[in-house]
Amino acid sequence: MNELRKDYLLDRWVIIAKDRAKRPTDFKKPKHKIPSSASCVFCPGRESETGEETYRYEVDGKWIVRVFKNIYPAATMVGDPRINDEEKFFTHGIAYGSHEVLVETPEHGKRFSDLSEMQIRHVLDAFINRINALNDLPGIRYVSIFKNQGQEAGASIFHAHSQILALNVTPSFVKEKMLMCYDYIIKNESCPYCEIIKMEAEGPRKVFENESIIAFTPYASRFPFEVWFFPKRHLPNLNTMSDKELNDLASALKKVIGKLDSLGYPSYNLVYFNAEPKGENFHFHIELLPRLSKWAGFEMETGIIINTVPPEEAAMFYRGEK
Amino acid sequence: MNELRKDYLLDRWVIIAKDRAKRPTDFKKPKHKIPSSASCVFCPGRESETGEETYRYEVDGKWIVRVFKNIYPAATMVGDPRINDEEKFFTHGIAYGSHEVLVETPEHGKRFSDLSEMQIRHVLDAFINRINALNDLPGIRYVSIFKNQGQEAGASIFHAHSQILALNVTPSFVKEKMLMCYDYIIKNESCPYCEIIKMEAEGPRKVFENESIIAFTPYASRFPFEVWFFPKRHLPNLNTMSDKELNDLASALKKVIGKLDSLGYPSYNLVYFNAEPKGENFHFHIELLPRLSKWAGFEMETGIIINTVPPEEAAMFYRGEK
Repeated sequence: MNELRKDYLLDRWVIIAKDRAKRPTDFKKPKHKIPSSASCVFCPGRESETGEETYRYEVDGKWIVRVFKNIYPAATMVGDPRINDEEKFFTHGIAYGSHEVLVETPEHGKRFSDLSEMQIRHVLDAFINRINALNDLPGIRYVSIFKNQGQEAGASIFHAHSQILALNVTPSFVKEKMLMCYDYIIKNESCPYCEIIKMEAEGPRKVFENESIIAFTPYASRFPFEVWFFPKRHLPNLNTMSDKELNDLASALKKVIGKLDSLGYPSYNLVYFNAEPKGENFHFHIELLPRLSKWAGFEMETGIIINTVPPEEAAMFYRGEK
Repeated sequence: MNELRKDYLLDRWVIIAKDRAKRPTDFKKPKHKIPSSASCVFCPGRESETGEETYRYEVDGKWIVRVFKNIYPAATMVGDPRINDEEKFFTHGIAYGSHEVLVETPEHGKRFSDLSEMQIRHVLDAFINRINALNDLPGIRYVSIFKNQGQEAGASIFHAHSQILALNVTPSFVKEKMLMCYDYIIKNESCPYCEIIKMEAEGPRKVFENESIIAFTPYASRFPFEVWFFPKRHLPNLNTMSDKELNDLASALKKVIGKLDSLGYPSYNLVYFNAEPKGENFHFHIELLPRLSKWAGFEMETGIIINTVPPEEAAMFYRGEK
């Protein structure tokens, strides 16, 4: 029998298809070749071919991390950021905001999990700088941070990078998470994620833990080998983490993604839920979403996701027990 | 400037990325080869290798359409269909229900749009038979009907087929649509989709129309070349359509999907919103969702979809103007 599970807080369901369960090695793919750096505009020396630079971290006159505007932006700072909802059924506006690319290393051939913990820390520092700068701009409602690794996850350029997309609407998924979290806090006077972290720290889905960070496969995982990362402390945002916590986060990301990469570098998305720039009522977290399965008609119609890897088995894989 | 648009009713947003717009021919792919029928268990003569048959339409002793249980079901009629929500944060149950496969034609090499209108009508009749039978079973809350065409849409077998998945929960996407629809009806004493249909029938997104059916590209299309099909009459369910309306629906599906297939047989999902088996407050519709783009980290984090094909241009393509 397969199992139905609901997300901790949201009305999102998954079918954990145990009967179709696959072992980690069933997902293992041959390693992809690294494409040549000859045509790579993210490599050092071709800075003039990218969009306007918005952040740079340098050592000895050489950049270590760079952020610049996407040449094919999904959003731009042109026009009126307000949404027009006066026409019945036809609510619209300009996609107002900023779409930036963060190059995570000057080295063409390195993947995210190959970077040193210190280099990943530089990436996190760059995010914090851009979150703070973009949230201060008028008209911006949300700053989305995400990484697309591999073709199946929507990446078109190999050189390790993330993206930052600031926009004039609060996205529905983020709003839904924030509302459920806030509703819980009002009713229970405690953060639901603080409670969930404590439960998962004792349970069969724990993946990794250090002093500041806990990582586990969520109860209703939608993706095979999905992992969530939380600071143990109740912190609403990446930019409220301490120096020590950021180092521990860099370490956790490197170790867990490195383990995922041992399956032959599968495609994944890494997304940052940075919901409340100035509030207290959210618990910052990061979701690692491996793209080892395809969402078909059933998922598209219903929103119910079929996942053939039970999160308890995925956690065993990450812990090295399987 | 790119445009932000919201769904007619739901809190679902898309960025219509006009600046990245592609022409229909940019999506055109070489035609896929049809795999050999030698290993196809959906072909006539191998009925004993499929799951238990639940429906058959025959002519002259040969089946024309067949429905049988999926050998790798996502849900089965075993155990207790009730959901257990007594444990805090961990709501779960058995994936209780039925997972069936509908083979749309005995002919191995034919795609859905190659079928005659009469054959498509036989497929619709089979759906109605299974919807009625499955909705009558205890514990069933929703009957999902969908078609996965092509690898990018999650299909693993070439021979033309759809799937029917009856389940013991009302899926969140369906619930959301039903609630918004019902809320609108209470406030306005009219069906929102009846109003939307009238507007779209006069507008730049109309794709196709016959006596009973209208098809248009939705205002906030999430997929390039997405099309929605509605009966013009306010009908809650496929099984309430008249003989004439079902024939007109078969005709509309064949013509519109045939046009999409002219792009080199792209992958697509076809999903049926059959929300209320016995109510009056929903307007049945079908969504055609071509899978010509990938959802990346931004979509996964925010639920906002970036679509590079404005629905007005997609409609021109379907109307043969582009």
